[in-house]
Amino acid sequence: MRPRIVLIAFLVLAGCTGSDDAPEAPGGVAVQLDLPPPDTTGGLGLSDALSGRRSVRDFTDASLSAAELSQLLWATQGITSTDGRRTAPSAGATYPLEVYVVTDTGLHRYEPGRHVLVLVAEGDFRGDLAAAALDQEAIAEAAATFAIAAVYARTEERYGDRAERYVKLEAGHAAQNLLLQAVALGLGAVPIGAFKDSELGEVLRLPPDHEPLYLIAVGRPVAGAG
Amino acid sequence: MRPRIVLIAFLVLAGCTGSDDAPEAPGGVAVQLDLPPPDTTGGLGLSDALSGRRSVRDFTDASLSAAELSQLLWATQGITSTDGRRTAPSAGATYPLEVYVVTDTGLHRYEPGRHVLVLVAEGDFRGDLAAAALDQEAIAEAAATFAIAAVYARTEERYGDRAERYVKLEAGHAAQNLLLQAVALGLGAVPIGAFKDSELGEVLRLPPDHEPLYLIAVGRPVAGAG
Repeated sequence: MRPRIVLIAFLVLAGCTGSDDAPEAPGGVAVQLDLPPPDTTGGLGLSDALSGRRSVRDFTDASLSAAELSQLLWATQGITSTDGRRTAPSAGATYPLEVYVVTDTGLHRYEPGRHVLVLVAEGDFRGDLAAAALDQEAIAEAAATFAIAAVYARTEERYGDRAERYVKLEAGHAAQNLLLQAVALGLGAVPIGAFKDSELGEVLRLPPDHEPLYLIAVGRPVAGAG
Repeated sequence: MRPRIVLIAFLVLAGCTGSDDAPEAPGGVAVQLDLPPPDTTGGLGLSDALSGRRSVRDFTDASLSAAELSQLLWATQGITSTDGRRTAPSAGATYPLEVYVVTDTGLHRYEPGRHVLVLVAEGDFRGDLAAAALDQEAIAEAAATFAIAAVYARTEERYGDRAERYVKLEAGHAAQNLLLQAVALGLGAVPIGAFKDSELGEVLRLPPDHEPLYLIAVGRPVAGAG
């Protein structure tokens, strides 16, 4: 069950800029992954999710479904109110976090506002990602690794030096949502902070004002593991 | 429904030291709050908790029950495995976080291993706490404010300079658990990072190697708010 990739012919319109607009890929073609709507009610009991959370590093080679990706992304940074509030809090609603996903088919960026994954680059970059993260096996094997990048400037503008603390705390909030959601879906996950920042930034093709902060590898746990 | 405070006569025994031992308060009396066992299964559906999480700053003056305190503390840093793993992950299982709770009756420290609250100082310090946090009303009004302090040295010993990032991320993980648990209990909560570190450290009577990192005010939401 691979997520269906939707190719949308993209007309470059004058003045059509900003992250909420249709994404543009090289060649004037916008590429996005069609995500089914997430379940915003129900799910595994919170206490079961908290009890069941454990770092899982051994995965089968099965991909995640589009529904699973959708649910995991929504839990991490999904919009949950009409005024754009999210599943994880943000100081002054400055929302400094950007979520990327590396799967066997490509590198994608999550847009919470439209709940879509935008293709940044096609291909399997999991090996490159693992190499930037001190060759950790979990990342090479995981069906999907979620990368949380920080745009400190968004929060610094309002909170100055204090922003650095806020942004890291917020990344932890978002990551915990992702870990709990993985438990609820019967998936395994492990958060990883050991990587070379600049090398990881290159693999993720991050804009200059984005800094990589956290990786969370997610996959189907090997039977008996976890 | 105030948590029952249990006074335990404490004999000072030679060699009886370390944080897992019976706590000692001035006067040779160890004081701990009797916490009922938390619910480690069931609870509100995770998606409902994620959808329902919103910062709540207006509270009634009702206290939290011992069962509510127990559940909130367990979600934040409770032990969930026989080898001491917790509800939130920690880099290399170094566990740099310490959780304090300020209620209308006192300042308490959580001991995850025994799942007890140890009384650090008796009295209502909520006003002092609010003063250290730029006079934020939510803290003055909240039934309980949870303070997450960091002992960076525990993680630095293994991870050096990288520890600072890990510890802040971990505090975010723990805080998100607390926020989701508050939703599941029908309580309101707001995370607060704006405070004067040294002043807050004094109010919390933190040891010199502990640094205050985060506050989460919890209470019963005013009807119609949140």
